[in-house]
Amino acid sequence: MVQLEKISSNRVSTGTLTKYSFPSTSLSLSTQFNIFIPSSASAQSPVPVLWYLAGLTCNEDTGAQKGGFLNSAGEQGVAVVFPDTSPRGRACRVRRTIGSLVRTPETAATIPPPPPLPSRAGFYINATNPKWAKYRMYDLITKELPAVLKEANLGLDLSRMSIMGHSMGGHGALMIYLKNPGLYKSASAFAPACNPSVTPWGINAFSNYLSAPAPAPSSDKEPPAEWLAYDSSHLLKQAAPGENLSVLVDVGTEDKFLKDGQLEPAKLEEAAKGKQGKVEVRLQKDFDHSYYFISTFSPEHIAFHAKALKA
Amino acid sequence: MVQLEKISSNRVSTGTLTKYSFPSTSLSLSTQFNIFIPSSASAQSPVPVLWYLAGLTCNEDTGAQKGGFLNSAGEQGVAVVFPDTSPRGRACRVRRTIGSLVRTPETAATIPPPPPLPSRAGFYINATNPKWAKYRMYDLITKELPAVLKEANLGLDLSRMSIMGHSMGGHGALMIYLKNPGLYKSASAFAPACNPSVTPWGINAFSNYLSAPAPAPSSDKEPPAEWLAYDSSHLLKQAAPGENLSVLVDVGTEDKFLKDGQLEPAKLEEAAKGKQGKVEVRLQKDFDHSYYFISTFSPEHIAFHAKALKA
Repeated sequence: MVQLEKISSNRVSTGTLTKYSFPSTSLSLSTQFNIFIPSSASAQSPVPVLWYLAGLTCNEDTGAQKGGFLNSAGEQGVAVVFPDTSPRGRACRVRRTIGSLVRTPETAATIPPPPPLPSRAGFYINATNPKWAKYRMYDLITKELPAVLKEANLGLDLSRMSIMGHSMGGHGALMIYLKNPGLYKSASAFAPACNPSVTPWGINAFSNYLSAPAPAPSSDKEPPAEWLAYDSSHLLKQAAPGENLSVLVDVGTEDKFLKDGQLEPAKLEEAAKGKQGKVEVRLQKDFDHSYYFISTFSPEHIAFHAKALKA
Repeated sequence: MVQLEKISSNRVSTGTLTKYSFPSTSLSLSTQFNIFIPSSASAQSPVPVLWYLAGLTCNEDTGAQKGGFLNSAGEQGVAVVFPDTSPRGRACRVRRTIGSLVRTPETAATIPPPPPLPSRAGFYINATNPKWAKYRMYDLITKELPAVLKEANLGLDLSRMSIMGHSMGGHGALMIYLKNPGLYKSASAFAPACNPSVTPWGINAFSNYLSAPAPAPSSDKEPPAEWLAYDSSHLLKQAAPGENLSVLVDVGTEDKFLKDGQLEPAKLEEAAKGKQGKVEVRLQKDFDHSYYFISTFSPEHIAFHAKALKA
């Protein structure tokens, strides 16, 4: 059983936000996350779980502090998990003694310098390039963290989960939702990178983290299958006919990265044609890429997920 | 006329948050502030103005990003001003040419090192100690900024103002409200320093910034009159019988600074006895001093002020 170390705890909304650290096998590093749990949660009355994946340059605190999610989540009785966004490069050796955990001082891990991306961006994928192959952010979010939370007996109902995210984390949320039909009740995203196998951030991340090399520039070749397997627009196009989709996406019309061609929500809309369920992509006039944009629409996203989680 | 330089602008809630800089005569320095203005505001239909004074170690961004005020303020049609909390020690020379503003590069001001307070805390008072006497935060908030906003024709109704704040800024909000009967319709505070003339933060600030020396330690002497003139509990005790008070204060029971004797809300309650109107002090179980506490109750504070501003 993984031992969670409590880092901090704050009463907020109708519950408590707690920050935990634990040694992650998916990353070979310690990692931190915040979790908001309404006070009503208990083993007898477990609450559904909503995941929030933050973007590049952010961490487990950003969404909790600036997203404006917690009052709505508290009213709805929904837990919200805020994982860290990337491997942080801190090694953590943990050994157990009878009944307690002894944490040896953290030592700087022997990690090669990060790829030429802003910050140590994880992109929520499992790296396969041998240089980075111990960074398995996808496994952390989809397998290890849910298992850790289940073991911790926090009053969560992990059979009812939904997922959302921002920017790189919006890509993460949509991609993880689409790759795991039935695992999440709904997905939503703020300004997500919808088509990363052919847009600059994604090409940069995939060509560094994944084994399959990039197609030659200006060739007409499709991106490699290993890349497409992490591309939401591709995954949505492949979605099985019977899959009942529940997706909400907001993008601001003044988002610099929309204008730069990093987000491509139209590609997601195109891929959604003829699919079952609902994939709603909304362009929000004059909004940008910031947390001011997110905090404006976060109550609507919470309501969207709460409806799916309680259906 | 003071020229405002626009630093940034973000669409949020039902309006826009804009950050401005201007050369402040109250501080002899440039200063920045954020202002949220609902899109409905116009010269024909000006909106009331709510001030938010942040605490020590914070600046003009903290409340705007983490306070959770803007969705409620937007719904209520109330503007919110977030001034910087302290003189930042950046000198700014500004000269005008026909039709435009030429800003010479900012140069580090010749400012003595800050007093032994965490960060360069302004405490929202006019310093009189000659060493700091160019720092007039009280004048900035009560006179210069309202005049600057009025001149800027932003669709604000500056005859309808209310004021709120957190911690050091809670002291500022209550003190400024009580010193200026009739100028603000209501005041509220999160975890304010209610009795700073006899509590450690206040003693530190007042003994550094003000001319009147501190009473000898453990003497029974009252604090000097110059200190009491910035002490909300003292000011409230002195409030004229006819003054119709409208004050809301929230303090978390797990607030470290409440336990340390920095806040003393009971002194404010005691001073309110027999006064006209309402001074409500609420202890919020298990909450602490953080913005998680503020963001939980900020919608209630906005509703409280909106009611007073629209009465």
